[in-house]
Amino acid sequence: MPATTPAYEDDNVFAKILKGEIPSEKLFEDETAIAIMDVMPQSKGHFLIIPKAPSRNILDASDETLQAVMPLVARLARAAKAAFSADGVRIAQFNEEPAGQTVFHLHFHVIPVYAGVELKRHAFGDVPMETIKEHAEAIRAALAKG
Amino acid sequence: MPATTPAYEDDNVFAKILKGEIPSEKLFEDETAIAIMDVMPQSKGHFLIIPKAPSRNILDASDETLQAVMPLVARLARAAKAAFSADGVRIAQFNEEPAGQTVFHLHFHVIPVYAGVELKRHAFGDVPMETIKEHAEAIRAALAKG
Repeated sequence: MPATTPAYEDDNVFAKILKGEIPSEKLFEDETAIAIMDVMPQSKGHFLIIPKAPSRNILDASDETLQAVMPLVARLARAAKAAFSADGVRIAQFNEEPAGQTVFHLHFHVIPVYAGVELKRHAFGDVPMETIKEHAEAIRAALAKG
Repeated sequence: MPATTPAYEDDNVFAKILKGEIPSEKLFEDETAIAIMDVMPQSKGHFLIIPKAPSRNILDASDETLQAVMPLVARLARAAKAAFSADGVRIAQFNEEPAGQTVFHLHFHVIPVYAGVELKRHAFGDVPMETIKEHAEAIRAALAKG
């Protein structure tokens, strides 16, 4: 692998979601980012925050993008923790395939954690979309409460 | 566990490192944060970025703290990737004990990843301090190159 980060390619799934070409269960949107439910959740309430600015991952992201997104990550993490009375929250951000990145548009995982409950492997999630929609609604409600 | 985040306590290990009461293998310091090697690394070059402002984790961190630290996380992640020709980088940030947080002062893990090499479990790291110092020197050299 070259030392430099490969160029951003705009045919990835998140680019298509941002363009509205693919549906998603959206939690939040502002001028800088969207938050959507992860459809292969590792835990109840697992979601993603996706900056709108095109970058492959953190390695080629602009400072401005990162500065805009992190307060949002924190705000949404607080909302998710409240929504599900979660015992903790993991934030994870993967860069390049060997690190676990599967979609090459910068994104942050927010994974509520529950005491005594093991996280699922991402690839083995099998949660019905109806359940994911209910979880989304719980987070939206917590966000609306501030 | 209450919905609110417990109060910050300033007797944690990272607070003591920030005050210079405990030694660390430091990679970087500016007015907002330090970066130090993780002494129980999950991979070659695993280090931590610790904002100086006191907060327990992302749940009680200020927007200003998060905005200041993320460009630094990215800059140091790039340096570590270059230093070790890593194939990827994981960024991880844990909030509360069930999520894996063991020191209750906000910090970000930067974990270089190598194709075909499994990450070690944090608690089972057994890398000699001499090796960790060599890895620190490699990251510092990459940082100095820009």
